[in-house]
Amino acid sequence: MRVSRDSILKTRTVRFEAGSPSPREDRVAVEEPLEIRVGKETVAVTMRTPGHDFDLAAGWLLAEGIVTRPDEIVRFEHCREVRSPEEEGNVVIVRASAPAAAVGRARRMLVTTSSCGLCGKGSIESVHADFPPVTSSVPVAASVLAGLPDSLRAAQSAFAETGGLHAAGIFAPDGALLAAREDVGRHNAVDKVIGHLFREGRLPLDDAILLVSGRASFEIVQKAVAARIPVIAAVSAPSSLAVELARDSNVTLVGFLRGGTFNCYSGEERLLPAASARSAPEGPSPA
Amino acid sequence: MRVSRDSILKTRTVRFEAGSPSPREDRVAVEEPLEIRVGKETVAVTMRTPGHDFDLAAGWLLAEGIVTRPDEIVRFEHCREVRSPEEEGNVVIVRASAPAAAVGRARRMLVTTSSCGLCGKGSIESVHADFPPVTSSVPVAASVLAGLPDSLRAAQSAFAETGGLHAAGIFAPDGALLAAREDVGRHNAVDKVIGHLFREGRLPLDDAILLVSGRASFEIVQKAVAARIPVIAAVSAPSSLAVELARDSNVTLVGFLRGGTFNCYSGEERLLPAASARSAPEGPSPA
Repeated sequence: MRVSRDSILKTRTVRFEAGSPSPREDRVAVEEPLEIRVGKETVAVTMRTPGHDFDLAAGWLLAEGIVTRPDEIVRFEHCREVRSPEEEGNVVIVRASAPAAAVGRARRMLVTTSSCGLCGKGSIESVHADFPPVTSSVPVAASVLAGLPDSLRAAQSAFAETGGLHAAGIFAPDGALLAAREDVGRHNAVDKVIGHLFREGRLPLDDAILLVSGRASFEIVQKAVAARIPVIAAVSAPSSLAVELARDSNVTLVGFLRGGTFNCYSGEERLLPAASARSAPEGPSPA
Repeated sequence: MRVSRDSILKTRTVRFEAGSPSPREDRVAVEEPLEIRVGKETVAVTMRTPGHDFDLAAGWLLAEGIVTRPDEIVRFEHCREVRSPEEEGNVVIVRASAPAAAVGRARRMLVTTSSCGLCGKGSIESVHADFPPVTSSVPVAASVLAGLPDSLRAAQSAFAETGGLHAAGIFAPDGALLAAREDVGRHNAVDKVIGHLFREGRLPLDDAILLVSGRASFEIVQKAVAARIPVIAAVSAPSSLAVELARDSNVTLVGFLRGGTFNCYSGEERLLPAASARSAPEGPSPA
């Protein structure tokens, strides 16, 4: 199997059906390390699917509070002093307008997190030190939410081929897809899609919906809050701390969004029930 | 929602069906930060589901090559100097027989990883610097593999309640379950189940099968190699680097293990086809 900058790699596999093997070709999602540097300082190393690396770096820096405006990033470049050809493209250098301040902030953040106390409450406080609760009261129809997973899946070309990529999509309140990104890591897919819109100057995302293909963890909610996204929907379950951070951040958090049904764990006041459901409390429907 | 040492928390939710909301109670998987210290040095902070924290710490230290034998760990304790009641239980201190050497090793490892080159090949080399390829040639029947997901699901009490926990199980070649653990993080579930058997003095796991409930990433294969496990099965897709590390480590890697069928990406020589499949090449069956 050859190292590649592509997000999908062909590989041989043996398919077993009813215990009977047959060779075939399969496609797998590429996983490679990415190092993010601000100037000369390494601030993160993550396993990701190559592609949209500058978006990933921008989204990560935003979520960690290291940069707050796109113009603080002078430019992105790939490190050219690679030690081997395989490494090429796996080191992104961020040239920031105030690199010392940005890195100092990254360091301070680490200290702050630690002094907050290592617990859910401390984790939430450390997010709120950078990002206050969101204020948007944008309404979203329940019927719009119900249709989002199909829209995201339609935009997810690589998943269809590999079954191995997470996806994150950002939608307008009417369900129009603004951007979608894929990655072996769900958190990377979220960084990529938010980082893309951040770099285009489209933040704050006051009237946007974030959809993730898997579960909703604390980290996913943190990234949405950093981008000021008021509504998060996950195809699978949320964690306790995701629910707690969403509630404390005035974010609507929806889980188990499948087949038109879902659970809302926080901020249900933004969700508009179906017309029939809304009229129901007014009286019985005519027989 | 109250902070809890439990792995499941009750929470209110609003269920939307066909756009119509109804309040109900749901259970979510708990997510809380855990800090692992060797003596006074912090070596890791991870978001995990509380429970089996000493197993998690042991498994993590093993996979990172910081300890190699259970007797190198003198004892585990929870940090008692907590800054808030919520923090209690979230800091595990490992007392090692040679703490300076262990931490020195952790530091050296970080340096080694970096000097290897930041790429898939470098990541694989850094695993092999600690752990050579596995040598066990244990045979496993395809029919045994096919039955493992049901066995793991039966052992997964919390998933049934929350739908939000990953699971990892370790099985004997005949399919008998040796141990299973759950966590919001798949890598944590693997650390917990391996750490448990490590602490019980049952490593190397030369004739064991590791089953994970989700995808197989590089990190999952790394942890199996550290425990000398020759066969890994995943319910979902493997990544490119998981396949590459498995091939280079002489590990059998199975993906998409569902409904009795699966794909084998590496080490298929350990897998025994069904009897009918094996006899098939000898000639046509009597009509």
